[in-house]
Amino acid sequence: MKGKVNINEKLGKFTAHWTPKIIGELNGQYVKLAKVKGEMVWHSHADEDEMFYILKGSLTLKFRDGEVTLNEGDMYIIPKKVEHQPIAEEECHLMLFEPISTAHTGDVESELTVKELEWI
Amino acid sequence: MKGKVNINEKLGKFTAHWTPKIIGELNGQYVKLAKVKGEMVWHSHADEDEMFYILKGSLTLKFRDGEVTLNEGDMYIIPKKVEHQPIAEEECHLMLFEPISTAHTGDVESELTVKELEWI
Repeated sequence: MKGKVNINEKLGKFTAHWTPKIIGELNGQYVKLAKVKGEMVWHSHADEDEMFYILKGSLTLKFRDGEVTLNEGDMYIIPKKVEHQPIAEEECHLMLFEPISTAHTGDVESELTVKELEWI
Repeated sequence: MKGKVNINEKLGKFTAHWTPKIIGELNGQYVKLAKVKGEMVWHSHADEDEMFYILKGSLTLKFRDGEVTLNEGDMYIIPKKVEHQPIAEEECHLMLFEPISTAHTGDVESELTVKELEWI
């Protein structure tokens, strides 16, 4: 039956950091996978909430008023407009759930910004 | 920092089968956890695509023209209007993503239907 997606098989298809890949679409939302390591730029999304679900490793989310460290099996929903900076000391694998309209680094453009996301 | 959700901790908060619990909300969608065992009724959702992500165990989705068995780490998006029957021989734990508007068993009502979903 078509349509079954195995997360580990999809994770094996790319190595680049901070380059989310699309693995599913439903109700105007994308499901994405990402591998991250190091620091992302500070940014926010004006109109989109964003969910991070940690598949492997640890991710720290810095906010202007604090920070949270997520480990495997943790999820976090960042509300629209909230400035955040994701940081991973070691490689971290995560699943993202966000509207199709979501720009990678919001209204901030940096050398890390990916404009055209790829399906895998 | 408020807002961190650990999936295993949430799974420890309920035991009932076929009774999805809400663990997050973003962009008009709910993130839910469910424990299932046995057969659900055949149903479809007129306006909502539905995503199943398997956290533990196996789930078979029967369709009118075939079936698919999902194991841990597999995800599947059931498009709106597609009739399906979820079946789990042994207990299976899953994460669901679907619009807030999604009725548990679509337009079918059975003794398994849960009308008021609970946040945990």
